[in-house]
Amino acid sequence: MLVGSSDTFSSIVSLQFLIMLSILFYSLLARPSTAINNGLARTPQMGWNNWNALGCDVSQDLLLDTSKVLLDSGLRDVGYQYVVLDDCWQGQRGADGYIKHDEKKFPNGMKYVAEKIHDMGMLYGMYSSAGEMTCARFEGSLDHEIEDATTYASWNVDYLKYDNCYHMGRFGTAKLSFDRFNAMSKALNATGRPIVYGLCNWGEDYVHTWGMSLANSWRVSGDIYDHFNRPDALCSCTNPADPYCVAPGSHCSVMNIINKVAPYVDRGGPGGWNDLDMLEVGLGGMSDDEYIVHFSMWCALKSTLLIGADLRELTPRTLTILNNPAVIAVSQDPLGRSAMRVRQDFNVKKDNYGQGEIQIWSGPLYPQDQLLVLLNAADEELTISTDLNEIFVHEGPEGSAPQVKLKYTIYDLWADRMDERQAEKILEGDFQKHQKRWYNSTETPYRQGLDNNDERLLGKKVGMLTPEKPELSLRVPRHSLKMYRLRPQGGETTRYALHKQEL
Amino acid sequence: MLVGSSDTFSSIVSLQFLIMLSILFYSLLARPSTAINNGLARTPQMGWNNWNALGCDVSQDLLLDTSKVLLDSGLRDVGYQYVVLDDCWQGQRGADGYIKHDEKKFPNGMKYVAEKIHDMGMLYGMYSSAGEMTCARFEGSLDHEIEDATTYASWNVDYLKYDNCYHMGRFGTAKLSFDRFNAMSKALNATGRPIVYGLCNWGEDYVHTWGMSLANSWRVSGDIYDHFNRPDALCSCTNPADPYCVAPGSHCSVMNIINKVAPYVDRGGPGGWNDLDMLEVGLGGMSDDEYIVHFSMWCALKSTLLIGADLRELTPRTLTILNNPAVIAVSQDPLGRSAMRVRQDFNVKKDNYGQGEIQIWSGPLYPQDQLLVLLNAADEELTISTDLNEIFVHEGPEGSAPQVKLKYTIYDLWADRMDERQAEKILEGDFQKHQKRWYNSTETPYRQGLDNNDERLLGKKVGMLTPEKPELSLRVPRHSLKMYRLRPQGGETTRYALHKQEL
Amino acid sequence: MLVGSSDTFSSIVSLQFLIMLSILFYSLLARPSTAINNGLARTPQMGWNNWNALGCDVSQDLLLDTSKVLLDSGLRDVGYQYVVLDDCWQGQRGADGYIKHDEKKFPNGMKYVAEKIHDMGMLYGMYSSAGEMTCARFEGSLDHEIEDATTYASWNVDYLKYDNCYHMGRFGTAKLSFDRFNAMSKALNATGRPIVYGLCNWGEDYVHTWGMSLANSWRVSGDIYDHFNRPDALCSCTNPADPYCVAPGSHCSVMNIINKVAPYVDRGGPGGWNDLDMLEVGLGGMSDDEYIVHFSMWCALKSTLLIGADLRELTPRTLTILNNPAVIAVSQDPLGRSAMRVRQDFNVKKDNYGQGEIQIWSGPLYPQDQLLVLLNAADEELTISTDLNEIFVHEGPEGSAPQVKLKYTIYDLWADRMDERQAEKILEGDFQKHQKRWYNSTETPYRQGLDNNDERLLGKKVGMLTPEKPELSLRVPRHSLKMYRLRPQGGETTRYALHKQEL
Amino acid sequence: MLVGSSDTFSSIVSLQFLIMLSILFYSLLARPSTAINNGLARTPQMGWNNWNALGCDVSQDLLLDTSKVLLDSGLRDVGYQYVVLDDCWQGQRGADGYIKHDEKKFPNGMKYVAEKIHDMGMLYGMYSSAGEMTCARFEGSLDHEIEDATTYASWNVDYLKYDNCYHMGRFGTAKLSFDRFNAMSKALNATGRPIVYGLCNWGEDYVHTWGMSLANSWRVSGDIYDHFNRPDALCSCTNPADPYCVAPGSHCSVMNIINKVAPYVDRGGPGGWNDLDMLEVGLGGMSDDEYIVHFSMWCALKSTLLIGADLRELTPRTLTILNNPAVIAVSQDPLGRSAMRVRQDFNVKKDNYGQGEIQIWSGPLYPQDQLLVLLNAADEELTISTDLNEIFVHEGPEGSAPQVKLKYTIYDLWADRMDERQAEKILEGDFQKHQKRWYNSTETPYRQGLDNNDERLLGKKVGMLTPEKPELSLRVPRHSLKMYRLRPQGGETTRYALHKQEL
Repeated sequence: MLVGSSDTFSSIVSLQFLIMLSILFYSLLARPSTAINNGLARTPQMGWNNWNALGCDVSQDLLLDTSKVLLDSGLRDVGYQYVVLDDCWQGQRGADGYIKHDEKKFPNGMKYVAEKIHDMGMLYGMYSSAGEMTCARFEGSLDHEIEDATTYASWNVDYLKYDNCYHMGRFGTAKLSFDRFNAMSKALNATGRPIVYGLCNWGEDYVHTWGMSLANSWRVSGDIYDHFNRPDALCSCTNPADPYCVAPGSHCSVMNIINKVAPYVDRGGPGGWNDLDMLEVGLGGMSDDEYIVHFSMWCALKSTLLIGADLRELTPRTLTILNNPAVIAVSQDPLGRSAMRVRQDFNVKKDNYGQGEIQIWSGPLYPQDQLLVLLNAADEELTISTDLNEIFVHEGPEGSAPQVKLKYTIYDLWADRMDERQAEKILEGDFQKHQKRWYNSTETPYRQGLDNNDERLLGKKVGMLTPEKPELSLRVPRHSLKMYRLRPQGGETTRYALHKQEL
Repeated sequence: MLVGSSDTFSSIVSLQFLIMLSILFYSLLARPSTAINNGLARTPQMGWNNWNALGCDVSQDLLLDTSKVLLDSGLRDVGYQYVVLDDCWQGQRGADGYIKHDEKKFPNGMKYVAEKIHDMGMLYGMYSSAGEMTCARFEGSLDHEIEDATTYASWNVDYLKYDNCYHMGRFGTAKLSFDRFNAMSKALNATGRPIVYGLCNWGEDYVHTWGMSLANSWRVSGDIYDHFNRPDALCSCTNPADPYCVAPGSHCSVMNIINKVAPYVDRGGPGGWNDLDMLEVGLGGMSDDEYIVHFSMWCALKSTLLIGADLRELTPRTLTILNNPAVIAVSQDPLGRSAMRVRQDFNVKKDNYGQGEIQIWSGPLYPQDQLLVLLNAADEELTISTDLNEIFVHEGPEGSAPQVKLKYTIYDLWADRMDERQAEKILEGDFQKHQKRWYNSTETPYRQGLDNNDERLLGKKVGMLTPEKPELSLRVPRHSLKMYRLRPQGGETTRYALHKQEL
Repeated sequence: MLVGSSDTFSSIVSLQFLIMLSILFYSLLARPSTAINNGLARTPQMGWNNWNALGCDVSQDLLLDTSKVLLDSGLRDVGYQYVVLDDCWQGQRGADGYIKHDEKKFPNGMKYVAEKIHDMGMLYGMYSSAGEMTCARFEGSLDHEIEDATTYASWNVDYLKYDNCYHMGRFGTAKLSFDRFNAMSKALNATGRPIVYGLCNWGEDYVHTWGMSLANSWRVSGDIYDHFNRPDALCSCTNPADPYCVAPGSHCSVMNIINKVAPYVDRGGPGGWNDLDMLEVGLGGMSDDEYIVHFSMWCALKSTLLIGADLRELTPRTLTILNNPAVIAVSQDPLGRSAMRVRQDFNVKKDNYGQGEIQIWSGPLYPQDQLLVLLNAADEELTISTDLNEIFVHEGPEGSAPQVKLKYTIYDLWADRMDERQAEKILEGDFQKHQKRWYNSTETPYRQGLDNNDERLLGKKVGMLTPEKPELSLRVPRHSLKMYRLRPQGGETTRYALHKQEL
Repeated sequence: MLVGSSDTFSSIVSLQFLIMLSILFYSLLARPSTAINNGLARTPQMGWNNWNALGCDVSQDLLLDTSKVLLDSGLRDVGYQYVVLDDCWQGQRGADGYIKHDEKKFPNGMKYVAEKIHDMGMLYGMYSSAGEMTCARFEGSLDHEIEDATTYASWNVDYLKYDNCYHMGRFGTAKLSFDRFNAMSKALNATGRPIVYGLCNWGEDYVHTWGMSLANSWRVSGDIYDHFNRPDALCSCTNPADPYCVAPGSHCSVMNIINKVAPYVDRGGPGGWNDLDMLEVGLGGMSDDEYIVHFSMWCALKSTLLIGADLRELTPRTLTILNNPAVIAVSQDPLGRSAMRVRQDFNVKKDNYGQGEIQIWSGPLYPQDQLLVLLNAADEELTISTDLNEIFVHEGPEGSAPQVKLKYTIYDLWADRMDERQAEKILEGDFQKHQKRWYNSTETPYRQGLDNNDERLLGKKVGMLTPEKPELSLRVPRHSLKMYRLRPQGGETTRYALHKQEL
């Protein structure tokens, strides 16, 4: 009833109606949030998440026991700060719209868990989905963003992994996905609590073009599984140039994910990162060499770095992959620029899965260094050669880059991998005694270590590259890599700035 | 005129206007339905549908005669419960917006048909399309969802197959399709009658990502036709990774559909299933072996299971495929998890259509068993080999799965196929006499049968797999399969739960 | 101002506002038009259009001279009824929003042209675009649909070709395109004048799934050009399974278009047809054999059939292709069902363009007949063989079709092509004298001719196919085809109806 | 409260509400702008832009120094008029919503720069992005279009390059992108100042179908980089038929871009052009021959033509590519029609990148001429042959074009390339003395020069093509081209007009 009268009922109805309209139009007209600027994730977030090893098998004990391992093994102090609880923690959603935790799994509540983790000097993460259900079919947060963000903040949560299952069809254009995930971004911001916001929409709807505007990281693929390169029917998206794929999947190999992110690996940067999914290191499906490839590439490509193994059963060998400060320094590099692929060659021996290739990656490191990775994913040991022209092709092709005119010291980033017996002793509990050469980034952040030219971050000198002898030729075993830091001698290269923060 | 005045006309106009606005905004703001939770289809729905054999040639007699065959042949009691009438039953839509049935084909009306079917202990299904017309160009339900759902409920309908033709362009993103199909979901829910809701949008707009939220099943491909693997111009969607295809088509082969669903076969589960389309078993275009492949894979992949043959002409041989309880127990398995493909190999002999491949499928069965299917779709008899590592690759690649450390008894699910002469006699009318070894799931649901270790559901013991001798190597004829249940001996495997209902 | 007051100005403003809102919401809520039901195009429309030969070079004289040729050559009476003026007829759009014609090209106005054409017993068509401009950059009809439809109706226009250029980005989902083209559909319907509505959106946005709901035909590809099979950069859409393509293009060959429509050739039917674009027959870029392929396939696939040649320069040879009643009877068949492809084989000799294939097409004809086309698009003369199983595969694969059990007389549809000298004399003006064996569909519609078993429509008997001797094996020259009507002898096949109109 | 009462608060709220609604509905109902008709860019815009050479390293001095080189070297007078400042000029956006410049880089403000450039007889361009941030992560213009357009106009800006980064997900259909870019188009128009509007959305969302309606040019690919044909992971869009690609990228080679635009190269025309990105000529990554290919093809395909080199370090050799009036006359041809590809042949020697092909391009030139380009992108010197039939295939295939019946004089457009020593002297400052044969388009526009048959625009006569001897066969070195103007002798060809402006 829109007409002049003194009908009080109508007035009330209409008032409600007006408010309803106002909310609707406000939401249509409201300024979207600007580029994520919560001050977090200036380098890729590091930590642990239970899903890869344990799925729904979660509990308070799991989180607290794991936190203790992170602390005692020194992993916290090389950077693994976030303890992230994945799906299956939920109880019911109350009539008031607020979600409850599962009281059986978490008898003291989530805030208690957060406090305990905070007490150990670490940060606490949780999980939900931008859908009516989570992937494990618990209550999702779609259309409950404000209630749930408020709840997480009240629990002192520091990180939210936000999944994509059961999205009620709100998907299919960048806009549909953006709006859905932005609802939680705004809700998190509104809490006032700094909470790292990690999208998990499997690289759909061109998330790399808008993830930075609302989140601290965004997944680029279907779920990883514990294999180096095996194609699986449940990871059907094998054409990295194709933005649309029927089902990103849940069985994506390390090589599949590396290839998927390659076209837009440059889209991450301080504050917002490509997320190549949690690490499989230590789960048993790959060789030691393959896990080194996996871990190294996640660092080189500036992925988030969340351990996926069950740390209560951490082995010495796994520890010596996860705790290499020279490699982690690449992940946590102050420039925040991913390596880029400069070569992909399929003319090599294929394995039973029909897979086989070699790749070369290169990219800038702080302060004037260059990362070089020679990756042999062929089914045989191979000699891989490159030279300065190729290494710096992205600064100018065919030798037109100014960088090719300098000399470089080559540092091998895996040469100083921790001795396995030392790791064994650390895991036996005697960390203080056996932590020689250990790098503690809690005390000395990586940027400071690099400014100090800390040898533990540089790796081991193994040679030179010069304009006169610009070639590098190396024997690389099957399914392994060589990872080097090139440091120019006596000269500064000039890179034109590409981003505001580089000026 | 929105202003205060005493103009009565304005008042009326404005009131209507307010109502109109309210309806509009209500529809914008209304909470979408939550994940389908109508308590139905906890295992894939089983039954019969007339379309594959008879197209528009429908009538009351057809439905009632067919129902009688289902009852008398024992098919009802192995699980085929739904008698579903497809397109062409419609008369005109009345001026009141309500649809009429065709009085010539159904002289006693649809409710009468439903009653007769209910009297035989079965359930009754009908058909419409989320378009202005059905595929056969009768009245569709688009923008008449509420009238039509109300009508179906008033007729005591138990199942709705809901098609995709003539959608008025409301398609092209998940959201557009979701909203269109959700209109009927909400309308059905509003009737209060439990009605199984089966989408038939041919796998378009990523239905596997949202079908679960509003329906009990969703088609994954264009219409099946009665061929094992022949490519046809009218089934142009041959790249399973591609979500967009010009025309899903109407001539899709069994192998085409299997390959199409493979990337998201895991998206079905209790309450909502991938629908691989009605069965062609018995229609004459395939060999007996090929029909066994067809039927077995529909069971293994947890498809809906609707017989497509004209049961008035049911042959003994066809009956012995459709009534194998050991295979149906796979379909109706309480876990509700599809087998997943662990191998696809094209390096085999191709036929005249250029087709040829082998596939291996594996997946969990209740309670701790594993399904294994070796499928030879090559143009020659072949030896297919596998081992425990491959069978359990989805629990952990390269032998990292805990399941590879156990011993398994192998049960052949087709070994106890009913004798053809027995089937012949059953069809001659003497069911009670010839029903030895018959499994009656009406009396003993499959879950209970499995709990009883009923041999008719387990199949026949044919061997062992052990950690010491983990290989299996079998001769498989052209266009046929081997289908086994592996049961662990003396030990329980631990699978981490992936879904709420598994906890 | 929505509040009670006696402010008269406000009242007026608000009233306008209310009306504006009402219109808006009406347009949002209004029932979309139902399936096109303007009673037109029950068989594919036939006629002439100037674009292919003359582009923008249009005038009153051109239309009237051409109409006279259609009449005098007998082409009108084999069915070419619509004289369609394409782009470039426009003058300016007036301040009142109504479009003017170009007074120089059409000194007597468009209504005059229509009248003259009507006087000759033909119908008159015009052109516009669902964009701000037409393709030739004249005024388009976007957001002027009502004004323009009104104008066309006032000019007594009988046909509208409606193009897709300069669509202001209202495109990219079926819904966006549907809504844009539906605006003109509703505007045409609102005029009350029966106007054939032919969409020209180049097969974009899945038009074959919604064209039937609002139009009488829809283009399926970019513009045709006068070549049999040459790939051209400006026709980049060469993957028929892909609904999205960067630019449908303007240089699409006959074979490209045939292959493009193959996946959804069944989507046309009485009232709405796939449009394979205007004919190039007679323009000089193809051989006589190739033009026969072009014309025959357009008939077999139930395309619209608009002559594209400049009829003022019509040659005898061209006439004898365009006027074959046995082939046109396939186009105008009362069943209205397209042939479907039953084989495509690329294992043949390729030409310099890398092109080469053979195709077999088959489909139902009125009353119980079957069309068979053997198309040799290889770069060599070939023997092509088929049999009843293949011919009727779409009624049941592998010989399961009931049709394979009958005998068929084979009629060659090109055997009675008009003698070139006869055609020459007809073009010299002495039609009445030389029109022996001529079929006049104005007097005897094709349905009636078929009911009469008119030999001119059946073609020439050339053999038999029987269950005992079901094979057909023929020598087919390079870039040509064989086109047969198979008529069953002494028996009726039973086809289950697929559509309402077939019941 | 929408009801009549004397509640003043309600009145106010409602009034605001009405205004809010009005704005909303106005924006929904407003007529979109018609085809860009700002009178600008009637031939492809020419000028300079800093990004390719200098990235974010911008300053007042850079712009003014560069302008001086353009003037002194004669480049301004062969047509390079626009001095365009790319990203990184921004300061903060003020609380009033208006953007500030970086006061350190531009101490006298942008208006000062514009004035200085205007004083030199050139025009001034700037940059922003239709996103919340620019690509270099400065303030973007999304939702600030009116403020920013007003600002640019107040600074006397003549050109806006408008980028696509950080678009907040408003992308994924043509409509979403159109609306986003149209906001700035309308804002620019509203200023009243003629400002060339160049879209930079990397060819996404089918921009070639709607760019003409709102802009003067539109980019067709990811960013160019300084290589002839090297595939790079950061330019993943290698299938030109595919409109959707995961990331258009930033390392696209010259050949990649040529192939990408080929399917819709005809969509540019007077007022709106395909933009193949800024020139890399002179940056050092290509050979002299390769730069000639690059420059020639940009002219032949009617790309915008913006020099990307640092002109403060301009070399003589680079100058002699950029200043060839016979080639520029192709770019600035009054017809404004791009050459089209008539052949692409991959059967040639491949290089280490797996690349190798030859292409032939042809197209109409003013007044009755034809452009012919023979491009050898193979990894070897080759003989390339063609003939009149192929050259005019787009006017009629297989020799049906009327043009094949004429004689043509062949002019080599690169024969009169400026002598390098002459260029050296010009760069040493003595332009007036060394500018013999120089073409000054400021004095004599290209159309006038062509009307005058100015030899400097025609190139050098090198032979004839005739109906009797229609073949041309040439030795073309690796990675180079031959570029000819064919002028018919004593006869006019008749081309049917395709566009309004050609009538």
